[in-house]
Amino acid sequence: MSSPPRAETFPANTPAVSQIFVTALSQGPLTRLELARRAGLSPAAVTKAVRPLIEAGYLVESVDEDARPALGRPASLVRVDSGRALFVGIKVTGDEVIGVLTDLCCRVLLARRLPLGDRAPRAVLATLADLTQELLAEADGLGVHVVGAGVAVSGDVDRAEGMVRYSPFLEWREVPLAELAAMTTGLPVTIDNDVRALTVAEQWFGAGVGLSDFALVTVGAGIGCGLVVHGRVVAGAHGVAGEIGHVTVDPAGPLCHCGNRGCVEAIAGDAALVDRVRAATGAEVTDAAEAAALAHEGVAGAQEAYARAGEAIGRGIATVANLLGPERVIISGEGLAAYDLFAEQIRNSFAAAAFGSAAQCDVQTRPLPFEEWARGAAATAIHSFIGSGSHQ
Amino acid sequence: MSSPPRAETFPANTPAVSQIFVTALSQGPLTRLELARRAGLSPAAVTKAVRPLIEAGYLVESVDEDARPALGRPASLVRVDSGRALFVGIKVTGDEVIGVLTDLCCRVLLARRLPLGDRAPRAVLATLADLTQELLAEADGLGVHVVGAGVAVSGDVDRAEGMVRYSPFLEWREVPLAELAAMTTGLPVTIDNDVRALTVAEQWFGAGVGLSDFALVTVGAGIGCGLVVHGRVVAGAHGVAGEIGHVTVDPAGPLCHCGNRGCVEAIAGDAALVDRVRAATGAEVTDAAEAAALAHEGVAGAQEAYARAGEAIGRGIATVANLLGPERVIISGEGLAAYDLFAEQIRNSFAAAAFGSAAQCDVQTRPLPFEEWARGAAATAIHSFIGSGSHQ
Ligand SMILES: [Zn+2]
Ligand SMILES: [Zn+2]
Repeated sequence: MSSPPRAETFPANTPAVSQIFVTALSQGPLTRLELARRAGLSPAAVTKAVRPLIEAGYLVESVDEDARPALGRPASLVRVDSGRALFVGIKVTGDEVIGVLTDLCCRVLLARRLPLGDRAPRAVLATLADLTQELLAEADGLGVHVVGAGVAVSGDVDRAEGMVRYSPFLEWREVPLAELAAMTTGLPVTIDNDVRALTVAEQWFGAGVGLSDFALVTVGAGIGCGLVVHGRVVAGAHGVAGEIGHVTVDPAGPLCHCGNRGCVEAIAGDAALVDRVRAATGAEVTDAAEAAALAHEGVAGAQEAYARAGEAIGRGIATVANLLGPERVIISGEGLAAYDLFAEQIRNSFAAAAFGSAAQCDVQTRPLPFEEWARGAAATAIHSFIGSGSHQ
Repeated sequence: MSSPPRAETFPANTPAVSQIFVTALSQGPLTRLELARRAGLSPAAVTKAVRPLIEAGYLVESVDEDARPALGRPASLVRVDSGRALFVGIKVTGDEVIGVLTDLCCRVLLARRLPLGDRAPRAVLATLADLTQELLAEADGLGVHVVGAGVAVSGDVDRAEGMVRYSPFLEWREVPLAELAAMTTGLPVTIDNDVRALTVAEQWFGAGVGLSDFALVTVGAGIGCGLVVHGRVVAGAHGVAGEIGHVTVDPAGPLCHCGNRGCVEAIAGDAALVDRVRAATGAEVTDAAEAAALAHEGVAGAQEAYARAGEAIGRGIATVANLLGPERVIISGEGLAAYDLFAEQIRNSFAAAAFGSAAQCDVQTRPLPFEEWARGAAATAIHSFIGSGSHQ
């Protein structure tokens, strides 16, 4: 095992340094001038911020050979040195733990999955530690330090305090996951809500690059939403934000686990779809895949359940658009597997409920496997590493 | 008429200059150190930003006589020179034009109202010009230039383009109000949605000072909402944002002017309340005041209409809280006059529909007369004057 040449601390965490680094990370390589323009800083501020980052090896500057002009000096491009540090990202679902090892550019070097037999914190932590050990063993061969890990969990997650306040799918309440995972993995651990983590990845590397206002809506076991407003992920003053799943669609609708009736999630979440298809068809449907299969076979009761789910999701998205007016809404999540069953209803109900020019919002779908969610967790670890002064 | 000593342009509109100015405006007088801390800038950046503002007379620095220490140098405080420039702010309702003359600190020096006989753009512009002339005549005596006007109108207002896209209450579509008002008043004019304008005033001078995330919900003829997220007013990528009035409460409810059923506004707006009270009681109710009077007299049908309106408003506020997690929601608007009739229902339905810790959001009421809305319009004029580089 080779040891890395330099200490693993990120230099001078001023907002400008973090901002320049994130801009180079998500939009680089860029000339210094373009970096200044996109970060909204003066060229002098960029010069000042870039220097310590180059000295510490996090940024490198090199001539752009592809764009060498016929006359004059060639342009110099600033980019992140992807090999400067490694990160682990982990997404915990109800059945599996999915882990990735990424470089500093958050590129996935390898991915691993381990099944989860038991959802109790102790069992999840053991699996999480095993998976991290596998990833660290592989990282050893690369001679670069793994400097942090991110863990993404669904539910009400207090990132600043490192606490999972409440995760309905794991049935956890007040679990100090960051501290426990740091002890079992030996790494600094950042935890976050899984949809928020995926939103950071989309903002930095996905369909949100360059947008100051967008929403990511995830459809599957739960119906979640990550929001970026004024260029930053919305966290909520009390840790709750993006709860599109609990927008009311029908006050006389089915009971939701939140205690209200007719929430989007109580109509369009996997469990709701399974219940509804079972009730409508009498078939012994046990999961969303079977429910979708019946609808694909043309069973009317199953198709109606998906149509109703699509209507609820479209209305939820319209509510987000009417309140925030995002440039784009990205629909993702496991539920996309059945997208053809409710795409039209989502579109129609969004169009009907969007107010005025809010209907101009670009609504698009984007399949993102769980490895992308784990990558989102790695992105939150990178975010923590480069400092909380970041305005991203 | 005395002429002002200096040209009326705001110096060097870098984001830092605007930010420092707005911080001094809303939270000053402050020491330079405190100004740096609250604006999130380095003391060096403050020194650089403050210099041209002091030279041009927009900021002044003076010894804080109240806090003169027993030993050592007295603290020096930076504050906005309120007398450096004047602004006009105008709020247009369906029946009236309300105007204020403010100083650079957005303090109301005087207020005037003129009735509106006709809601056509031509008639409104004539009244608006008359009112502005009255205010300018008074300003003449003060020897300070009026450097800009703000006009606040309800509906879909494109501030950047200066266009009123659609105002249901005025029945306007695509009116280039900023240009027309500039021609009739002779002043640079900024137009904005009235709720957004009031939100700026609340952020700078009201119940939103020092909060990075809050919502202002206005109850009256319409149900509106201004949102501040990450310290900035949400404008919407396509000009629509804060449309809490069109959050669906009951898909089987009354038809809304937006084409959907059971929107908050279709249940809790003045017209909806009047309709409902009339239908429930058979009384010849013509406006919200009469509807409220019946409810105050204990007429059951009228009370039920207000109870239902409160439920709808509470659910709309919970939707905002679940999506954005603001620190505070301020309820205001003419509808507060009847607040005792639905306060309990607003509280209860908010508490029931708020998800998890979103319920911790501080929901408070705050009566703001139309002069405060006009002051909000003046605040948008100040905002434009100090430059669009502002991060507020
Ligand atoms: Zn719910
Ligand atoms: Zn409506």
